[in-house]
Amino acid sequence: MIQRLAVIGGGLIGGSVVRAARKAGAAASIAVGDVNPAVVARVAELGIADLSTADLSQAVKGADLVIFAVPVLAMNQALKAALPGLAPGAILSDVGSVKGAVADALALLAPEGAFVIPGHPIAGTEQSGPDAGFAELFENRWTILTPLSDAPDYLAAVDKLSAFWTAIGANVELMDARHHDLVLAVTSHLPHLIAYNIVGTAADLEEVTQAEVMKYSAGGFRDFTRIAASDPVMWRDIFIANKDAVLEILGRFTEDLQALSRAIRWGEADKLEELFTRTREIRRGVIAAGQESAEPNFGRDRK
Amino acid sequence: MIQRLAVIGGGLIGGSVVRAARKAGAAASIAVGDVNPAVVARVAELGIADLSTADLSQAVKGADLVIFAVPVLAMNQALKAALPGLAPGAILSDVGSVKGAVADALALLAPEGAFVIPGHPIAGTEQSGPDAGFAELFENRWTILTPLSDAPDYLAAVDKLSAFWTAIGANVELMDARHHDLVLAVTSHLPHLIAYNIVGTAADLEEVTQAEVMKYSAGGFRDFTRIAASDPVMWRDIFIANKDAVLEILGRFTEDLQALSRAIRWGEADKLEELFTRTREIRRGVIAAGQESAEPNFGRDRK
Repeated sequence: MIQRLAVIGGGLIGGSVVRAARKAGAAASIAVGDVNPAVVARVAELGIADLSTADLSQAVKGADLVIFAVPVLAMNQALKAALPGLAPGAILSDVGSVKGAVADALALLAPEGAFVIPGHPIAGTEQSGPDAGFAELFENRWTILTPLSDAPDYLAAVDKLSAFWTAIGANVELMDARHHDLVLAVTSHLPHLIAYNIVGTAADLEEVTQAEVMKYSAGGFRDFTRIAASDPVMWRDIFIANKDAVLEILGRFTEDLQALSRAIRWGEADKLEELFTRTREIRRGVIAAGQESAEPNFGRDRK
Repeated sequence: MIQRLAVIGGGLIGGSVVRAARKAGAAASIAVGDVNPAVVARVAELGIADLSTADLSQAVKGADLVIFAVPVLAMNQALKAALPGLAPGAILSDVGSVKGAVADALALLAPEGAFVIPGHPIAGTEQSGPDAGFAELFENRWTILTPLSDAPDYLAAVDKLSAFWTAIGANVELMDARHHDLVLAVTSHLPHLIAYNIVGTAADLEEVTQAEVMKYSAGGFRDFTRIAASDPVMWRDIFIANKDAVLEILGRFTEDLQALSRAIRWGEADKLEELFTRTREIRRGVIAAGQESAEPNFGRDRK
């Protein structure tokens, strides 16, 4: 059990961590730090933490676990601001969608005796801000930790952090940071890039009005708009921080798309049907892996 | 009110039309025809129609409204099989996602005195087959009709068909067939093509296992798997039948994707943030247009 949890960043993920920790009794007391005064005020109003402050060094004071829940390129600055208040032996973790370079920088900046354990809960919605968080966000979702050492005291800290995530409903997995970045480029970063791109393309067409796009979006497009409504600054940072893996996967995607385009141009019905049958199987795998329901109407309420 | 409704094709859409018609009392009696004996048997077992038969000319006998709910490239053959049973003055419509060429062929094949009024309900799920249908599928969704004439008796038939779709919950819109095909290429066909492609790309990677892709799909990928699980034959036909519009829109998409890729490569943070902010606005438009809810967690149940 965590004595004092400090979450830096009171947005969707940070706000969900504190709500979940309180609901599960996973931390004796909770502080939230955020450089945005409006967020600090809103967190205080919502009453989801014992302390809400714009002074990050104040927020982390006495914390045995500090979780940075800020856009990946804002992480270093947040850690620098928090440094003066950090307790010796504190666990420093994060929730960012890119681990490699970001984790290295955190480890460089962290004070002697702190345990830097990069983390990433694979969960979220397209909403942002303190009001968007909810305690159940991590339930039955995976949280990946990418440990940087195998020293015994470090491993004990990894166990403590794992226990925290497990207490708030997540399943924990350990992974190499570089591999994490490649896996996430496939399962998250490329899908977001594609969704942002298609929504942008649709908005720029002359022949089809934006009103028509919105009106007839139930044919598939609306699922892309949901993804493409995710936090702009967070995603800007992710693509820049994970540039190499994203561009590599994007290259593969583009190659495949060209082959598919050619199959349509030449009316190669068998090729199309073969691919579409194969992708259907993968959907079954996602459902079997417990990451989705098989409900009709995309699992949405029919009300 | 329709005296006798005949639906050819007892899959997701056809099965939903008959359920919705019965629930709303929009047709005095209902027949289902399907060339697949397993579907015929299942429709009979489900008891959702007054007649279920593999003989399409039998199915359409005495029907004042016949709706073809089969893959677009199977439509002509289905109409040919139904021809001997068609009543004079019957309305012939469909639910296909491509209108232009398909509508022309239907009109050529139809007997003298029949009213061919192509139609397309913008609704669906990734499920297939008679069991996948449900009566509420069309509620608050758009159905587009693409009339081929403005003769007074034809327009009266359009009114009758519009009234049917309205009775089962849809909002009806009239549109030119070619424009329909361009709009749908944007709002439905390209999103499906992209989803099929990305799921295929992910499945073929050597560095990331399929098990990892499924496990960590909550980061965005699972939304694509849902779309990419749609009926393979139906979608094969759509891309072939709407080739020109799909390739045109795909060309625009690819251009934009290359620009986006370049912005990532050169770390052009402002360009990325600008696009991502713009696409978020479009999401708000989709919600305002009533085609989606703003619920957190992608509008899915949190249970």
